[in-house]
Amino acid sequence: MKIAFVGLGHMGAPMALNLLKAGHALAVFDLSADAMQTLADAGARKAASPKDAVNGAEYVITMLPAAAHVRSVLGAEDGVLAGIAKGVTIIDSSTIDPASVKEFAALAAAHGNAFVDAPVSGGTGGAAAGTLTFMVGGSAAIYESVKPVLSGMGKNIVHCGETGTGQVAKICNNLVLGVTMAGVAEAMALGEALGIDPKVLGGIMNTSTGRSWSSDTYNPFPGVIETAPSSRGYSGGFGTDLMLKDLGLATDAAKGARQPAFMGALAQQLYQAMSTRGDGKLDFSAIIKLYRSDQ
Amino acid sequence: MKIAFVGLGHMGAPMALNLLKAGHALAVFDLSADAMQTLADAGARKAASPKDAVNGAEYVITMLPAAAHVRSVLGAEDGVLAGIAKGVTIIDSSTIDPASVKEFAALAAAHGNAFVDAPVSGGTGGAAAGTLTFMVGGSAAIYESVKPVLSGMGKNIVHCGETGTGQVAKICNNLVLGVTMAGVAEAMALGEALGIDPKVLGGIMNTSTGRSWSSDTYNPFPGVIETAPSSRGYSGGFGTDLMLKDLGLATDAAKGARQPAFMGALAQQLYQAMSTRGDGKLDFSAIIKLYRSDQ
Amino acid sequence: MKIAFVGLGHMGAPMALNLLKAGHALAVFDLSADAMQTLADAGARKAASPKDAVNGAEYVITMLPAAAHVRSVLGAEDGVLAGIAKGVTIIDSSTIDPASVKEFAALAAAHGNAFVDAPVSGGTGGAAAGTLTFMVGGSAAIYESVKPVLSGMGKNIVHCGETGTGQVAKICNNLVLGVTMAGVAEAMALGEALGIDPKVLGGIMNTSTGRSWSSDTYNPFPGVIETAPSSRGYSGGFGTDLMLKDLGLATDAAKGARQPAFMGALAQQLYQAMSTRGDGKLDFSAIIKLYRSDQ
Amino acid sequence: MKIAFVGLGHMGAPMALNLLKAGHALAVFDLSADAMQTLADAGARKAASPKDAVNGAEYVITMLPAAAHVRSVLGAEDGVLAGIAKGVTIIDSSTIDPASVKEFAALAAAHGNAFVDAPVSGGTGGAAAGTLTFMVGGSAAIYESVKPVLSGMGKNIVHCGETGTGQVAKICNNLVLGVTMAGVAEAMALGEALGIDPKVLGGIMNTSTGRSWSSDTYNPFPGVIETAPSSRGYSGGFGTDLMLKDLGLATDAAKGARQPAFMGALAQQLYQAMSTRGDGKLDFSAIIKLYRSDQ
Repeated sequence: MKIAFVGLGHMGAPMALNLLKAGHALAVFDLSADAMQTLADAGARKAASPKDAVNGAEYVITMLPAAAHVRSVLGAEDGVLAGIAKGVTIIDSSTIDPASVKEFAALAAAHGNAFVDAPVSGGTGGAAAGTLTFMVGGSAAIYESVKPVLSGMGKNIVHCGETGTGQVAKICNNLVLGVTMAGVAEAMALGEALGIDPKVLGGIMNTSTGRSWSSDTYNPFPGVIETAPSSRGYSGGFGTDLMLKDLGLATDAAKGARQPAFMGALAQQLYQAMSTRGDGKLDFSAIIKLYRSDQ
Repeated sequence: MKIAFVGLGHMGAPMALNLLKAGHALAVFDLSADAMQTLADAGARKAASPKDAVNGAEYVITMLPAAAHVRSVLGAEDGVLAGIAKGVTIIDSSTIDPASVKEFAALAAAHGNAFVDAPVSGGTGGAAAGTLTFMVGGSAAIYESVKPVLSGMGKNIVHCGETGTGQVAKICNNLVLGVTMAGVAEAMALGEALGIDPKVLGGIMNTSTGRSWSSDTYNPFPGVIETAPSSRGYSGGFGTDLMLKDLGLATDAAKGARQPAFMGALAQQLYQAMSTRGDGKLDFSAIIKLYRSDQ
Repeated sequence: MKIAFVGLGHMGAPMALNLLKAGHALAVFDLSADAMQTLADAGARKAASPKDAVNGAEYVITMLPAAAHVRSVLGAEDGVLAGIAKGVTIIDSSTIDPASVKEFAALAAAHGNAFVDAPVSGGTGGAAAGTLTFMVGGSAAIYESVKPVLSGMGKNIVHCGETGTGQVAKICNNLVLGVTMAGVAEAMALGEALGIDPKVLGGIMNTSTGRSWSSDTYNPFPGVIETAPSSRGYSGGFGTDLMLKDLGLATDAAKGARQPAFMGALAQQLYQAMSTRGDGKLDFSAIIKLYRSDQ
Repeated sequence: MKIAFVGLGHMGAPMALNLLKAGHALAVFDLSADAMQTLADAGARKAASPKDAVNGAEYVITMLPAAAHVRSVLGAEDGVLAGIAKGVTIIDSSTIDPASVKEFAALAAAHGNAFVDAPVSGGTGGAAAGTLTFMVGGSAAIYESVKPVLSGMGKNIVHCGETGTGQVAKICNNLVLGVTMAGVAEAMALGEALGIDPKVLGGIMNTSTGRSWSSDTYNPFPGVIETAPSSRGYSGGFGTDLMLKDLGLATDAAKGARQPAFMGALAQQLYQAMSTRGDGKLDFSAIIKLYRSDQ
C-alpha cells in the first residue's frame, strides 16, 4: 500500500517504521530534518510538504501534537487537502477534541475524502513494538478499510462508532485514568501516614474493590509494583504534562456537551499544580508527591 | 470455642450464624429481640447484656454501626469490659476510625485484654456465604490466634500490621473505591453525551488503563455489566449512605493525620448531594445520576 | 463623532442608544432586522454589513457574544477590516479570552488599526442607564483617546494596562464573584440547616470578615436582601449560563497560563450542574438551590 | 460581679484583663502558672481548679482550644459542674461545633445551670482592645443577662438565636471567609500571570461585584493593601492552622446536618496543603503561595 505519513515525533516515527517493516511504501513529512532522515534511511521517501507527501498515496496518516497542527497540515496552501486524490482516506492518530474531528471531517468531505479519528493508547513502548491500541471513529465500511493499515502498527484495532467516537473513547478513558490515579495516590499516602505498610495496602486494594490499573499495574507508591515508574523515580511512562493535556481535552469536551466534570476538573488542577511546581516531565503517577510532605 | 457475639444486624447476624455452623458455642447480644431469637433458634445462648454474653467466653466479637456504639458496648456498666476474663481477645469487626481503635485498645489493655480491629469487605452476600475478607490489625501472635475464629466467617484473613491498620486498610480501600466510582460515572456519562455507545466505551476502559473494579465489575452505566446493581435499578449492593459514612471516616482520618484529601473530600460531597436529594439508599454507583440530566 | 456599532443585543442596543443621545453619529449593524430598526428609529444609519458600517467611521465598537463572532465580524469578506480606514481604533466590549484579544490586536495592527479590549460590568440595567464600568486594555494614549467615546455609555472608564488586561480584569473579577457566591450560598444553606435565622446570619456576615458583595448586596437566600434577585424568585440579574461562560473563560485562561484554578474549576462545575438541571436562565445566585433539599 | 474565668491563652488572658479593668471580681484558672500569675498580678484570685474558681461565682466564662477541653473542664471531678451554684450561667467563648454545645447545654441544665455559646471574632487585637464581637446563642432572657458581662470585653454583642446558634454564626462566617480568600488568592495570582498590575486588579475588584473583606481589607497579594498581613510577609493575623480548624468544624457540621459543602471542603484541603508544606503558622491569606510558582 502507498501511504503518506505526516508527523514523525516520539510516537509517529516508530509507527511509520513499523509500516515500512510491514511492507508498505511510505512518503513522510515532518518539520524535523533529522526525523525525516531516520525514516528515509529505512526506505521512506522524504516529501517536501504534506501536499507532496500525499501525492499518489492510497492512505494518509497524521500524528500531531494538537488540533491546531492538524488544522494547519490539512488546510495549508501546501497541505494535505491541496494534494490528496479524491476518495483517499485520512487517518488522524493525534489525540484531539471530538469537536475538531467533526470540523476536519466536514472539511475533508468537501474535498471528497473520508477523515477517520484513530487515536492510540500504549505509549512510545507500544509504538515501537507495534502493539498499540487504535480507537477508530468512522463508519463500519471505513473501519474495515483502514484496519489492515492500522494492523501494521498495533494489535487492537477497536471500532468505537461514528466519526469522533475514537477521540471520545480516548479522552473518557484518560479522564478515568487521571481521576483514579489521583485517588490511589491520595489513599496510598494516607495509608502511609496512618502507619500501614504500603505494600500490604497495595496488596489489599488489588484483591478488593479498590482494584484498578492505577493500583495493580502502575501503583504510584515506590516499591509496591517493581515495574512501575514510581519504582524508578517516576521516569519514563506517561508524563504529567500529557495527562494534563488529556484532562484539558476531557473537561473542554464536557463544557461543550454541558456536562459537569467535578472529579476530572479537580484532578486537572492537581496535575496542573504538579506542572506549576516543575514536575511536568515526571510520570503522572508522581502526583503522589503532592500528598507526601517530604517529597 | 466459646464465643460472645455482640451486634446482630444485617452483617452480624449471618456472621454469627456461620460461627454456629462452624461448631462454635455462641452467646449473643443485640438490642433487637427478633435478632436474638433468630440466633437462639439456631442454637445460640441469648445473653441479657454484653457483660452477660462475655461470661465464660474465650473470644469476643463486636459488629456495630459506629465507634460510639463500640465505646458504649465496651465501657458501659453492663458492658464487655465489666464481665470479660483477663487474657480474652476482643475482635471488633465494625468499620470505625483508626483513632478510636487505639482508644479502645488502650482501654482493653488496661483490663488485661487484647483488642483487634478486623473490619470486613464482601457485604451481606459475603457475610451469608462465609466468604468475607477480614483486614486484621494486631501483633503477629494475635493474628495467628484469631485466624481460626475468623475463618469460620470468611475466606481471606489478611494481616495488615499493628493495631488499627485493619481499619486503615478498609478506609483507604473505600476511599479509592468512592473516588474511582465517581470518576467512572463521570466518564461514562460524558461518553454518552458525546455519542459513544456505553457498552463500547466500557469495553475499551476495561481492556485499557482506565480499568478498575468500578468499571469492569460494577460499571455504573445500566446494561454495561449485567450483574451490576446499575442493571437492576441500583438496588442491593453497597448503599450510597454507607459509602458516605466510609468517606467521612477517610476524610476525618486524613484531617487527624494532617493529610490533604482533595479527591476523597470532593467525592464525599457528591455522595452527600445524592443522599440529600433522597437517593441515599440506592447503590453507590447511582452517583452517575448526578451526571445524567434525565435522571 | 462618527461611530460604527456592531452587535445590538441586550447590552449593545441600549449602549448604542446612549451614544446617539450623547450626540454621536452612528452606523449600526446586527443580524436582527428588528434590532437595527430600533436604532434606525432613534437616528442611526442601518448598514448592510460590518464593512458598510465602518465606512467613514472614526471609531468602531463591537459588542458580541463570543470570540468566534468577533473573529468573523473582523475578518469576513464584508467585515470590519475590509472597510475600515487606517488609524481608526476598534473598541471591543465583548467578554472574551485575553488570548483572542492578542490575536485580534495583531490582526488589526496588520491593517494599521488599534484594537482595544473594553469589556463592561453593570449588566443591562447599567447599559440602559449609561452607568456601565468599562475595563480598558491598551496604551495610555489609546485609553485617553477612547475615553470620551466610552463616557457616552458608562460612568467609570478604568485603564487596566496594556492590550488584553481589560479582559483579564473582567474574568478575574468574575472568577472571584462566582466562587464567592457559591461560598455564600453554601454557608447560608448550612446555617439554615443548623437552625439560625438567615437574616441574622446574613447580618453577622455583612458586619464581619465574611462580608462580600455576594452577601451584602446580592445575598442568595430569599428575603435577606430585599432588592436581590433571590427575593424575586431569582429572575432578572446575571444569569447562571452567563456566569458559567465567564468561569469557562477564567479556567481556560488559567489553563493557558499554566495556573491552577481549584476554586474556579469547582464553582464552574456547580453552575454547570445548575444549568444541566434546567436552571441556566435563573440568576446565578440560584446556585443555593443545589444546597437546599426542598428546592 | 463575681466571675470565674477558665482558659487564659492568647485570647483568654486579655479578655480576663479587660473584665478586671471593668471592675469585676475575678477568679481564674489555667494549666499555665505563668498565665495565672499575670492575672493575679492584675488583681485576680488564682484558683486551684475549675471547681475552686467557680466557688461563689455569679458567672462562669470558659475560653478553650476545642470541645474536648470544654468537656473536661465542665465534667471533671474538680471541674466547673462539681462546684458551681445552681442558677449560675456558664458562658463558653471557645469556638467549637454546635453539636457539642447542645451536649454541654444538656449537661449544664441537668445541674440547674444555663450554658451559653458566645464565640468571638476580632482576634487577639480585638481581645486586647476590648472590641471583640460576641455571637451569643441562648434565650432572649439569657442574652440580656450576659450582655453586661460580655460588654466588658467586646463592643458588639449579637444575639444569634437559641443555644448553639452563636457557634453556627461563627463557623458559617468563617466558612465563607475561607472560601472567599481562596478565591481571591486564585484570581489575584491568575491576574498576575496574565499580566495585569495586581494593584489595578485589586482596585477593580474592590469597586465591583468581586468586592469582599478578603479583597478590600485583607488582600492576599503583597502590596495591594498596605495594612494586610500579605504586606508584612504573612505574619500576625489569623493563622492558616486556625482557619483549617474552623473549616474542619464547618465541614463536620455540614456532615452532621447532611448538607453538601463542596466549596468549604475544597478550601479545607488547600489550607491543609499549606499546613502540610509547613506554612500553618502564616496568616491564612498566604494561601496565595499555592498559586504563585516562585513562592
